[in-house]
Amino acid sequence: MLHPDLDILCVLPKLWQGYFVDAFRERLAPARFLTPEDVADPARITYAFVLAPPPGYLAGFPNLKAIMPVGAGVEHVLADPDLPDVPIVRMVQPDMAQRMSEYIVQHALNHMRRFRQIREAQARAEWNLFAAPTAPDTTVGILGLGTLGQHAGACLAALGFKVRGWSRTPKQVPGMESFAGREGLQAFLSECDILVSLLPLTPETQDLIDRDLLCALRPGASLINASRGGVVKDDDLIACLDDGIIGEATLDAFDIEPLPADHPYWSHPRVTVTPHCASAATAEAVSDRIRQVIETVERGEAPTPVVDRKTGY
Amino acid sequence: MLHPDLDILCVLPKLWQGYFVDAFRERLAPARFLTPEDVADPARITYAFVLAPPPGYLAGFPNLKAIMPVGAGVEHVLADPDLPDVPIVRMVQPDMAQRMSEYIVQHALNHMRRFRQIREAQARAEWNLFAAPTAPDTTVGILGLGTLGQHAGACLAALGFKVRGWSRTPKQVPGMESFAGREGLQAFLSECDILVSLLPLTPETQDLIDRDLLCALRPGASLINASRGGVVKDDDLIACLDDGIIGEATLDAFDIEPLPADHPYWSHPRVTVTPHCASAATAEAVSDRIRQVIETVERGEAPTPVVDRKTGY
Repeated sequence: MLHPDLDILCVLPKLWQGYFVDAFRERLAPARFLTPEDVADPARITYAFVLAPPPGYLAGFPNLKAIMPVGAGVEHVLADPDLPDVPIVRMVQPDMAQRMSEYIVQHALNHMRRFRQIREAQARAEWNLFAAPTAPDTTVGILGLGTLGQHAGACLAALGFKVRGWSRTPKQVPGMESFAGREGLQAFLSECDILVSLLPLTPETQDLIDRDLLCALRPGASLINASRGGVVKDDDLIACLDDGIIGEATLDAFDIEPLPADHPYWSHPRVTVTPHCASAATAEAVSDRIRQVIETVERGEAPTPVVDRKTGY
Repeated sequence: MLHPDLDILCVLPKLWQGYFVDAFRERLAPARFLTPEDVADPARITYAFVLAPPPGYLAGFPNLKAIMPVGAGVEHVLADPDLPDVPIVRMVQPDMAQRMSEYIVQHALNHMRRFRQIREAQARAEWNLFAAPTAPDTTVGILGLGTLGQHAGACLAALGFKVRGWSRTPKQVPGMESFAGREGLQAFLSECDILVSLLPLTPETQDLIDRDLLCALRPGASLINASRGGVVKDDDLIACLDDGIIGEATLDAFDIEPLPADHPYWSHPRVTVTPHCASAATAEAVSDRIRQVIETVERGEAPTPVVDRKTGY
């Protein structure tokens, strides 16, 4: 149980508050969980759970001991030039990796099995047979081999997919052919039928998935972006979908969220939009993780994993 | 290589001929692969590869050594009261189980992750968050624990689902809670979030999935029928979907195929129709299996598995 004197700051978009904040409050009591308008004395706040806090805002809390960004990506916190110099602890939890893997397997199978064409045929009451490959004939390439990428790779492999992975620095992951660095990217891409992005958003990955990259995949390959909107150059992706270079795309993350109602992705016939739900953990799992991080710090131990501010993840 | 004097009869619906027959001919040459209109001398035919042959038709081939029904179900052959007394060899092959498992995992994930609601929200350009359970909180029940059911169960379990199985006679399958017989059915159904039918069509399973059975599942459970249309009582399923007793259904098999254009399943908002493609094997895999069966019989050995005409599978 957390100490009743503990004040946790929570900075979340309005959309999230209804879903999660009450559940957090209940599970973390008797510690207090405060939204910005609840804060009377900033000096009492020792922990902050945040999504995209306004730049400079966290600098107003002089006694912070740790910052916990919502979800796996942290670029929305690192964008603050005045970020206090305290550990930024990542929200890793088994539930998150499990959910992300379910999402990736689901959409990899939907792409491979031509589910979009089958649904379109159903809308016309047409019984069409579609030749579809099977998982052992299909190569899924994962960009980003952190906790989530490794878990997803293992799930895809268990189902029979050929799996390969790419990371900034070389990693050996069992059951996966691994590639690394800019120099390994072309070889990695050249045999991918389905490309999955689990990349963090950093200056190096911004717009990485552009026309050149998409053209290096197998013709008609598909894309699943379950990380950050910023890693995909949207205009290039739409042009590649229209040209048939990319067969279809399932996108869970966007530059602006919620995705604006007039964005072309919503109505593109070969784009599936999901509302950043790929690895959405339950309020229960997230509050358990918040409690665990706070208990670790309060014991005087170092929480893990902590974000490396230089690499950006 | 098969003997050049070998004549194989092939009885398939017109829809299939274009997809498969040429590929079979090429891969089984120099043996000959004959459609009914090609047959000059019925006495030369020693093997038959068939889907729903007209009753009495196969009795006109006096030298048959084995009958190979297309696919995993065999009720369309056993319906013939004048069926010659030769082994009916089932078309089991690893490719078929792999594909079936992919289909079941795909649709189990689509149901669990509320993909239908997400697509409907996309059609309205609406960014809605949907609470969805995760596989370790979701129980999938498989009706029918033959080769396909066991393979699918292992794939679902590898992805983290809770898996239970039901069969006519007791079976112990690793990683799966098993139930058997009419007396075990209620207990099996009572905890299923997703029900999968892989049952053969027999007098015992005809219309087994009726209103009573569907009401015994967890409220709002979903159905995946990847076996035979006859195991589902269509009117009951539609009523249960309309009442919310069943959340959604994905159906791959129907009483009449192709599904008639005016059938209510095509346009039901909570039914996904797929064109009997769940385990559709490639022409390559099927011809390899045909060759293997023929070579076994020609060596004087007993092919396996052979259909038990009493149980009907």
